[in-house]
Amino acid sequence: MKKETIDYLMNTVGSDFVITNNGQKLSYMYDEIEHNVRPEVNISSIVVKPLNSNEVAEIVKYANENKIPVVVYGGGTGLCGGVSPIKESIVISMERMNKIIEIDEKNMMAVVEAGVTLAQLIEELEKHDGICFPVHPGDEGAQMGGMVATNAGGARAVRHGIMRNHIKGIEVVLASGEILRLGGKLLKDNSGYNLLQLIMGSEGTLAIITKITLRLYPEDKYTASVVMAFENVSDASNAVLEIIKNGVSPLAVEYQDRYLNVESAELLGLHWPLDKGKADILIILSEKSEEALYNSCEIINDICKKYNANKAVFAGTKKEQGEMLAIRSGSYEVIKDNIAYSFDMAVPAGYMPDFLNDLWELVTSYNTISYITAHLADGNVHNDIYMIDGKNPKYLEELKIKMYQLCFKYEGTLTGEHGIGKLRIKDLILQKSKVEIELMKNIKKAFDPNNILNPGTVIDM
Amino acid sequence: MKKETIDYLMNTVGSDFVITNNGQKLSYMYDEIEHNVRPEVNISSIVVKPLNSNEVAEIVKYANENKIPVVVYGGGTGLCGGVSPIKESIVISMERMNKIIEIDEKNMMAVVEAGVTLAQLIEELEKHDGICFPVHPGDEGAQMGGMVATNAGGARAVRHGIMRNHIKGIEVVLASGEILRLGGKLLKDNSGYNLLQLIMGSEGTLAIITKITLRLYPEDKYTASVVMAFENVSDASNAVLEIIKNGVSPLAVEYQDRYLNVESAELLGLHWPLDKGKADILIILSEKSEEALYNSCEIINDICKKYNANKAVFAGTKKEQGEMLAIRSGSYEVIKDNIAYSFDMAVPAGYMPDFLNDLWELVTSYNTISYITAHLADGNVHNDIYMIDGKNPKYLEELKIKMYQLCFKYEGTLTGEHGIGKLRIKDLILQKSKVEIELMKNIKKAFDPNNILNPGTVIDM
Repeated sequence: MKKETIDYLMNTVGSDFVITNNGQKLSYMYDEIEHNVRPEVNISSIVVKPLNSNEVAEIVKYANENKIPVVVYGGGTGLCGGVSPIKESIVISMERMNKIIEIDEKNMMAVVEAGVTLAQLIEELEKHDGICFPVHPGDEGAQMGGMVATNAGGARAVRHGIMRNHIKGIEVVLASGEILRLGGKLLKDNSGYNLLQLIMGSEGTLAIITKITLRLYPEDKYTASVVMAFENVSDASNAVLEIIKNGVSPLAVEYQDRYLNVESAELLGLHWPLDKGKADILIILSEKSEEALYNSCEIINDICKKYNANKAVFAGTKKEQGEMLAIRSGSYEVIKDNIAYSFDMAVPAGYMPDFLNDLWELVTSYNTISYITAHLADGNVHNDIYMIDGKNPKYLEELKIKMYQLCFKYEGTLTGEHGIGKLRIKDLILQKSKVEIELMKNIKKAFDPNNILNPGTVIDM
Repeated sequence: MKKETIDYLMNTVGSDFVITNNGQKLSYMYDEIEHNVRPEVNISSIVVKPLNSNEVAEIVKYANENKIPVVVYGGGTGLCGGVSPIKESIVISMERMNKIIEIDEKNMMAVVEAGVTLAQLIEELEKHDGICFPVHPGDEGAQMGGMVATNAGGARAVRHGIMRNHIKGIEVVLASGEILRLGGKLLKDNSGYNLLQLIMGSEGTLAIITKITLRLYPEDKYTASVVMAFENVSDASNAVLEIIKNGVSPLAVEYQDRYLNVESAELLGLHWPLDKGKADILIILSEKSEEALYNSCEIINDICKKYNANKAVFAGTKKEQGEMLAIRSGSYEVIKDNIAYSFDMAVPAGYMPDFLNDLWELVTSYNTISYITAHLADGNVHNDIYMIDGKNPKYLEELKIKMYQLCFKYEGTLTGEHGIGKLRIKDLILQKSKVEIELMKNIKKAFDPNNILNPGTVIDM
């Protein structure tokens, strides 16, 4: 990076908040993407830590005038390399913009700076009686700005949906360096094109999110978790579809192959309580009354019996519930070091039984395995292609394309929640028509004519 | 309209489906906007009724090549003149594109053509056991395409939110005449910029919606309505905020000034059951169990007592519930002929008590009145400036601007649900910054470089 630029940045945010040391810089250049599919970063990039929106605006204005790429680093919990600077860039770390500006109980809204982590928000909300923010992408180190920029999902999307359902306002810095406020604490707003919705999920390529107004909800007082084993994933999936159609609205419905649950439990020093069957689901319930909770459990039990569920283990205490969720979340550790490519496909939920069957057949035809974790009720599947003896298998690209083609056959998408990032940018054309890609490019140009905002992410210009 | 164009349209859709007769044409050129604020339509426009997406595509391609504006006429239930052709246009009526393509119970999705009315959808869903589509903008003559194009809201937004929360896929015809499918039956999809969300609410200015995939939900079995009178709207509003904070999730919370309820009931040959107090709210509840319904009623009752509600009348039967809703909906008839300008402002729900107080003071300072109907829990207010002796009052423009300024003081918006249309296009600059308007224009250009799609709506090019 030019000395002139470094000087400008130091003048703007203070020299303590510009990182030029290579060792320190690197930790701001990668997210949680698997090592072997990491994008190659440009090590001449520089990291800067602004304190507020005005400083972000000054940095971006300068970058735009000098055509220097700008990449935002949030919590670094992403999984598709969105934060990696592949050109010589200014990396803006949001860590100092971590103020919870307001918890507005009257409007049931919170206003936070983009660098506030989910953990921080949850901790703050615990001080207020019985209100919560429902989206939970798993890693509470995620920053709210990143969660908006990537339209984060997570296990609780079953009932509550994804980020875009709950974000009512944002402040952004545009590529020009101008600050723009969109929405606010409004529940309804039909005044013109919804730029807020467009920017959500655009992964830092249309604007830089600096503040967020998010909706809060009354927290359900009664919770329970239940794990159940089915003979196969089709039965599990069909049972879940019927549960939801019958009016039960679970907080989460997580599927996991038995192997992953058993191994994950062992890693955590816990015991997975199911032995019969092969296909395990974890259903998390929360309700306003004990009676409603009991009713939901009863409906679930009846339907699961119909689909030959083997054994149901109910967890009532916080500790038991926490353990089950930890086993589910910990499964990534079981396979992490062995992953060659990681998927985030989603298909319509009703097509899951057939899709997963076909996926199993496809994988078997390559004499390999692909363990499955799925947000079952959302049709969102996480599976992987594994390395062989620490190397990518020869069939990696071929099998990947075949899996995607299978997904599209079931009207699916490349990515349900993780996003395109730099990992899937080359694959997007498999899913989207040329006319859609062209529209996306035109929108990118409308927001960022010099292509400075996170280049190489979502679409190529 | 040039003979050449008329011939082309007749060849494309058949001569029976092109209307050139002035008298017949006019009924396709206005929505439900008040007569005295109607946009002036260009009577040389021509109406055409395509049968399917391909015919729409051919019409639009021709229009684009010849730079002829295209305006879509749906159910004609809009309130801001969105359907009126102000230039010489091809008006596309969607009435023949009225097929319900699929009710997919497994995925809990419906696929419909854009011309399907809400009444038609509701009727079809009644044949299926216990599933519903939750958005209800009041007039069931509304077409689904129009409801998506305007991101319709309505009374049930309290619990279910607006159209954009429930629309998972659309097929559109772009200005170029190309057909593009966005989304589908997916519950999660983070593959690139969300053009679906951008097109929703763009009022026919970015693309023409031809098909819709919408989400269906299990229907609650137990319903009740309750009306209550408060001494003033502040008390009513504060009670409602507390009800929602306490975890009750009503289907609708409708406020109406006493005068409107009494007069509306009289017009309908019914009796409004409340006499004491001045500020009436109607709360509609629906729950999965009788016990849940009872619990909600109890919480509501306790909170309303705290805010000095005078009397609560519960309606349990369908007939009683229907009458109360009819009185609420019928209030427009009481004032309709006397309206000079009609508002659709929204403010954050928690600011409603103060906003409505200030609004009352403002109106009083002009020695006039402005009856209020409000989706109270959403912060969405419908009020009006009335004519005097059948003419617009001198203060019309001045009072309108002052009301909008008051709304912005409370972080509000010009339009919570009705949209910008042609009615509010000149006022949008009061709310939006130049940089936001500029971005909207650039997006419009990206989709519709020749400005043929519903020109003069949402933004001026």
